[in-house]
Amino acid sequence: MLNHQNLTLAHLEFLTSIVGAEYVSSKDSDLEQHSKDESFHDAVRPAVVVFPGSATEISSILKYANQQHLPVTPWGAGTSLEGNPIPLCGGIVLDTLRMDKIIQLHADDFQVDVQPGLRYKVMNAALAKQGLFFPPDPGANASIGGMIANNAAGTRTLRYGTTKDNVLRLEIVLSSGEIIRTGTRAKKTSSGYDLVHLFIGSEGTLGIVTEATLRLSPLPEKFSAAIASFTTPQAATQVVSNIIGSGLVPAALEFLDAATVRAINATGEFNLGSSPVLLMEFHSATDAGLREELTQVEMLCKDGGCENFEAGLGRDERDRLWRARHRTYDILVRSHPGRAYLIVDVAVPISEYSRLVVAAQEALSEHGLQGYLVGHAGDGNLHPLVPYTPGDATSYAVAWAVDEKIVKAAIAMGGTATGEHGVGIGKRRFMSLEHGASLNAMKAIKATFDPNGILNPGKIFEPD
Amino acid sequence: MLNHQNLTLAHLEFLTSIVGAEYVSSKDSDLEQHSKDESFHDAVRPAVVVFPGSATEISSILKYANQQHLPVTPWGAGTSLEGNPIPLCGGIVLDTLRMDKIIQLHADDFQVDVQPGLRYKVMNAALAKQGLFFPPDPGANASIGGMIANNAAGTRTLRYGTTKDNVLRLEIVLSSGEIIRTGTRAKKTSSGYDLVHLFIGSEGTLGIVTEATLRLSPLPEKFSAAIASFTTPQAATQVVSNIIGSGLVPAALEFLDAATVRAINATGEFNLGSSPVLLMEFHSATDAGLREELTQVEMLCKDGGCENFEAGLGRDERDRLWRARHRTYDILVRSHPGRAYLIVDVAVPISEYSRLVVAAQEALSEHGLQGYLVGHAGDGNLHPLVPYTPGDATSYAVAWAVDEKIVKAAIAMGGTATGEHGVGIGKRRFMSLEHGASLNAMKAIKATFDPNGILNPGKIFEPD
Repeated sequence: MLNHQNLTLAHLEFLTSIVGAEYVSSKDSDLEQHSKDESFHDAVRPAVVVFPGSATEISSILKYANQQHLPVTPWGAGTSLEGNPIPLCGGIVLDTLRMDKIIQLHADDFQVDVQPGLRYKVMNAALAKQGLFFPPDPGANASIGGMIANNAAGTRTLRYGTTKDNVLRLEIVLSSGEIIRTGTRAKKTSSGYDLVHLFIGSEGTLGIVTEATLRLSPLPEKFSAAIASFTTPQAATQVVSNIIGSGLVPAALEFLDAATVRAINATGEFNLGSSPVLLMEFHSATDAGLREELTQVEMLCKDGGCENFEAGLGRDERDRLWRARHRTYDILVRSHPGRAYLIVDVAVPISEYSRLVVAAQEALSEHGLQGYLVGHAGDGNLHPLVPYTPGDATSYAVAWAVDEKIVKAAIAMGGTATGEHGVGIGKRRFMSLEHGASLNAMKAIKATFDPNGILNPGKIFEPD
Repeated sequence: MLNHQNLTLAHLEFLTSIVGAEYVSSKDSDLEQHSKDESFHDAVRPAVVVFPGSATEISSILKYANQQHLPVTPWGAGTSLEGNPIPLCGGIVLDTLRMDKIIQLHADDFQVDVQPGLRYKVMNAALAKQGLFFPPDPGANASIGGMIANNAAGTRTLRYGTTKDNVLRLEIVLSSGEIIRTGTRAKKTSSGYDLVHLFIGSEGTLGIVTEATLRLSPLPEKFSAAIASFTTPQAATQVVSNIIGSGLVPAALEFLDAATVRAINATGEFNLGSSPVLLMEFHSATDAGLREELTQVEMLCKDGGCENFEAGLGRDERDRLWRARHRTYDILVRSHPGRAYLIVDVAVPISEYSRLVVAAQEALSEHGLQGYLVGHAGDGNLHPLVPYTPGDATSYAVAWAVDEKIVKAAIAMGGTATGEHGVGIGKRRFMSLEHGASLNAMKAIKATFDPNGILNPGKIFEPD
């Protein structure tokens, strides 16, 4: 697809001269490990995996790779879900494993400077000692660099925003090898073009992030979880609109359909009933605020035909519920041996969420598939899980067709092909439909920043 | 500075053929009105003012201007403060006056599609009937297009974000005449490069916005204002850090120094004491939440040495206080006949706010100037008002030097040359200092989107 050169011995020698022999690997195990993320996309091995230790080393490597037209794909934790770091054209994988430091905490400003290889959960465990946390919670123990690459989001995004909303400053190595720093530690700025937001979500196709200043939040002092059951998914999703419309801002507002609830119950660890549920969390600076918020939400749920409302769950029960939510995928995989799930990731305006749920159900049932619907409902983000049998091309093609149907429905509703997983490989085919003529503007930016197409080639844009 | 052609009769005939004779003006009054915004920068007249009625008309004009190398500067309400729409190279001014419609309200989604010429206050008055509002409050009755161009912000940004945080979708005419639509009505997306954020704050140098989907908020049902006086500005600004650090999120948290307070009192309409004050507003979905929030803030203020704390102000008193705040500039101008004020606009991390106040005081007193300090303290945004005598070059040069000193101090503290007014003409000279090598990346984007440099030439970047 791109006119890349194959890696030669001379290339390997150069890489070794930059990072040292112990940080250049062509071992089978390393190539295999860096051939596949957690998505359903096929594995592709790189020619070599390099573990750089600094921005300067990455700069030297990119400058060289750019001259030699070698593909370079950055790698974080490998937890992404759209094939975002799969080295489609082989070449060099740059694993940021060693660049995993907290550089400086600015506690008074709720900010921290970190390296891209730092893991999300590791960082938040360290920050918790200061009463702080980085709120965008992707569920997985992603790397910060990967979260920035994909503009990751999750259960807490409703109140705290996506990764994009919580990054102030970036250090980036461009394809030329030039190192730039962009953004400011001030909370707001109108100073020139917003390169920070341009690079976030660009999946390593415009440059490689080597440092980031993140915006933190104080760990909530008062919080409460609640769970509400409804007879139909439509009743549940209508209440989502009503809650958001009331001006209340839950920290999380998740939808799980009846099939998902039953699968979670089947583990024997939970009893969430047998109806669609909304799983909610509230954060507040005050007890009274929290109580009144819960009262209002309970009223809205009951007005909306809620069968059962359980609130005021303690920290243990709340943690247990969120573990269930985060483990949904694993639970489904384990309860259906031999089956895997394509995780669709679409988002629509809240008012369309009920219709999106119906469209997803229809797309699944048209093919006689038993899928599962979970989603960050407060954000209008739905993740239909579409079953397929790994290795079975027909079953895979069916899942792919269901995905297409749901994504096209979301775009037709004014929504997006990807709410939080990024484009990677799986969503390239919808970019033209979603973006129209603005896709050419994106391609022009790509050509400006990476004229030789060495950075994560094959992602976001369909191959020519 | 740029190799633009002068406008000829043929050019005027073309413009007339596109928009009609009544919407092309070379009248003295129109040229004069479009030669100057509300900043301290010198007026420059355009050759012609055009009042287009649609994106299609703007497309035809840009396509032609691009072929003919004619400068085109978009114009909204002219309320900007850094010379952002002054047509430095003459040429065509495109006034979006006629494109002032609310296209569609999506009340269930808290969104509205609008044209760029719509005025902020006019729009919010219409939205109030639906219980909704667009929160970034620039004080002035700016156009929505101008707010997008400058990433405007203001008193409510602390809780609700800047313009950038509240725009979901844009229609833009590029310099080529191509019309693109970018963004989504979904609340979040990871789909490709973030052109929406790239265009917001680009001051019409990359394209002209012809439609925007804005994110609205429900009008707060419960609110309260409070005012707290402190013996020193340092005591006041330290309390700002403590309030933000506590996790409380005031809707507004403004700082006014003693000189400003006295000037406001001198109008006879207010009595705010004679000490530096913090002016605050709180929004809550619940009464109990509001009460508890006020109690906590009062405690933090008193712990921080507050002399006087007055809270629970009614709607009238609150509206009166905000009018005083928004009228500060006019009050100062009126109370000092013959004097004008250069409004500095810098932002720093909260922890540096006290030092920034000191640096601003020093910069003023070095030159024996009586300035005034006001600011959106919760955002770390300070507006020192530096007096000068219009028409007096020496006095102007002194004000310019004070501005430079304060901006450099802010950048040295990890801050930005402009928190909310944009770069325009006045901040171009700091772009290299603030952005370093990333300024070249911005210039590369400019060259990609506007290869002939026709769009708002002379802004953001210093002339070559």
